Amino acid sequence: MKITTIHEKTIPIKSALRNAVIDFSEMTISVVAVVTDVVRGGERVTGYGFHSNGRYAQGGILTERLIPRLMKAPQDSLLTDDRQNFDPFKAWRVMMSNEKPGGHGERSVAVGTLDMAFWDLAAKIEEKPLYQLLAERYRDGQWDEDVYVYAAGGYYHPGKGVAALQDEIRGYLDLGYDTVKIKIGGASLSEDLKRIEAVLEVLGKDNRLAVDANGRFDLETALRYGEALGSYPIKWYEEPGDPLDYALLARVSEATKVPLATGENLFSLQDSLNLIRYGQLDPERDYLQIDPTLSYGIVEYLKILRMLEEHGWSRRRLIPHGGHQLALHLAAGLGLYGNELYPGVFQPFGGFADGVPVESGRVRLPYAPGIGIELKAELMKIFQSLP
Amino acid sequence: MKITTIHEKTIPIKSALRNAVIDFSEMTISVVAVVTDVVRGGERVTGYGFHSNGRYAQGGILTERLIPRLMKAPQDSLLTDDRQNFDPFKAWRVMMSNEKPGGHGERSVAVGTLDMAFWDLAAKIEEKPLYQLLAERYRDGQWDEDVYVYAAGGYYHPGKGVAALQDEIRGYLDLGYDTVKIKIGGASLSEDLKRIEAVLEVLGKDNRLAVDANGRFDLETALRYGEALGSYPIKWYEEPGDPLDYALLARVSEATKVPLATGENLFSLQDSLNLIRYGQLDPERDYLQIDPTLSYGIVEYLKILRMLEEHGWSRRRLIPHGGHQLALHLAAGLGLYGNELYPGVFQPFGGFADGVPVESGRVRLPYAPGIGIELKAELMKIFQSLP
Repeated sequence: MKITTIHEKTIPIKSALRNAVIDFSEMTISVVAVVTDVVRGGERVTGYGFHSNGRYAQGGILTERLIPRLMKAPQDSLLTDDRQNFDPFKAWRVMMSNEKPGGHGERSVAVGTLDMAFWDLAAKIEEKPLYQLLAERYRDGQWDEDVYVYAAGGYYHPGKGVAALQDEIRGYLDLGYDTVKIKIGGASLSEDLKRIEAVLEVLGKDNRLAVDANGRFDLETALRYGEALGSYPIKWYEEPGDPLDYALLARVSEATKVPLATGENLFSLQDSLNLIRYGQLDPERDYLQIDPTLSYGIVEYLKILRMLEEHGWSRRRLIPHGGHQLALHLAAGLGLYGNELYPGVFQPFGGFADGVPVESGRVRLPYAPGIGIELKAELMKIFQSLP
Repeated sequence: MKITTIHEKTIPIKSALRNAVIDFSEMTISVVAVVTDVVRGGERVTGYGFHSNGRYAQGGILTERLIPRLMKAPQDSLLTDDRQNFDPFKAWRVMMSNEKPGGHGERSVAVGTLDMAFWDLAAKIEEKPLYQLLAERYRDGQWDEDVYVYAAGGYYHPGKGVAALQDEIRGYLDLGYDTVKIKIGGASLSEDLKRIEAVLEVLGKDNRLAVDANGRFDLETALRYGEALGSYPIKWYEEPGDPLDYALLARVSEATKVPLATGENLFSLQDSLNLIRYGQLDPERDYLQIDPTLSYGIVEYLKILRMLEEHGWSRRRLIPHGGHQLALHLAAGLGLYGNELYPGVFQPFGGFADGVPVESGRVRLPYAPGIGIELKAELMKIFQSLP
């Protein structure tokens, strides 16, 4: 049982989106395909991986460091002890050999992308969906039959007014979502409050709106927004300040009654531990959004889960960033709170299997071996185009 | 005044070295050359940049994100307001456009590499050494005429015994160094103490030995080493635990009387601020080793200096990681404690201008415009080989 080749490619995902910090017109994503000599159903089992949007493709680190290490490693060093499957934990150790501690960014994305492919492989070789494999290994075999999912949108576009924002939100409701998230901080507070009121008009008052500042605010602005948001039924206030400014977060946490959410720009166990140690988040109120594909993969995410549980956090407070199939498997298999989705954007990476609708804000699970990228035709075309 | 082209290349710096965490046999470094249409002495002024060893070349980020942004930017957006020179701060903002907050690693190296080239350019266009430019802008025109420098070595090699280690240390003394640093943590504590005693035998007892664990230890081991080191005249105990584990550092800081040193694996202002907020270091006892070439360059380093001064730290507690000309200019121009050097290794990047000896543990400054990479023949060959 061995890897025969690993393909990687950088895919542009041009989009006219803009949040409070960046525009997405030059965003790219890395895709990888780990091809093995294992045959299932007449075909070579291949593990597919990609990463979430927002942090750019990692072709350099993949082709110069990680893929050569995997291909040069004794192939047994990538297998489970009984040699019946690939072992994502062992692959992880090979990828991270000769890497110094600290500096968690970019490298964490490259490792997360390949880690996804190894979990896809492992589940395909066991001929079961990844959520089932995860549930069997880490949750006594119980998985959730459907998963909470909210619509992330409300981006700023040049010329997009409040009416267009309301139309966008109505579109999400028509698609079956009941919670939506919009961006804040790309406009003045008073303009943002008008946008919030306009969205609440469409949603009703029962806590179905989350807002996201994308880490833009200084302490004073973060507190000012926190206070203003307290007058509305806000489901959560996301990333008020710099993702590593735990002291700012602690001040906001203390000052506001609005639930907080953060973590999509923390890329390691150690950074997540610092958030818990210093950020003064409330495990009964707040949400954590660490993204495994950007953070050294499921191998690291499982360590993060264990650390969080040791600090009194329930898995049901976790909503991984991403909005794609890998995050859905994690939520269902490990019993997380749910997922996000960017309806219609970041295609073809965003979203779940084709033809699986969102109903009452939840999405059901398809049944296919591995992650089921094969069930998403436009995404599968990308992987089929690899040499 | 404009940039005509930017070259970049990945250079292998193979070495048989091994510290407690990685071996250097596959280490690489990125070099860049920013070519302008400015003419000095009949030649086009070109800014050169590279980064310190240990975190690998960054060809992907340089060629896919940073260099295209610089080349696409309106050229005036890279110039000082009076258009008489390039402005490293403005170049920095262009490089970091469309980059999300957090995730400080790799990207910080790529930016640091180009930042070096912009400072080299700026000083060459003003026709003065970089230390002079830095002193004029940030230190009332005063620079240090010579700079403290210590020899970093004492790596583990297969088969290298205590006698060979002593020979190595004697070699550093013969070269003119008086302080040396050796690795710890790649062997057992008792073996490491034998190595320390052997080195102290050569050095004498007056506080001229630093030891470096390269972030390897867990809390218990870090405390055990800290206690054991307290019995010896140790100049500093470097990176006991994970560089981002500020709580571990705080515990070690509290428990040991040995001065601590850390920072070479923190790559941003925000991470440095967290170190100061949570690491419980002592500004009268400890040392900070943040490396500008790995941490978004001099632009970010100046912000870090300001932050440190606001927290009661003197610049004289700073010894930037690196062991190369850029770090020497910073130390002399900004009035830092000093520099490290890896005598004879990481060539041709390590070390200062040719023919400038170390005397009594200090090195004098050469006089040449910019960083003076032109004064280091073997290094200059690499830059001359760029297309």
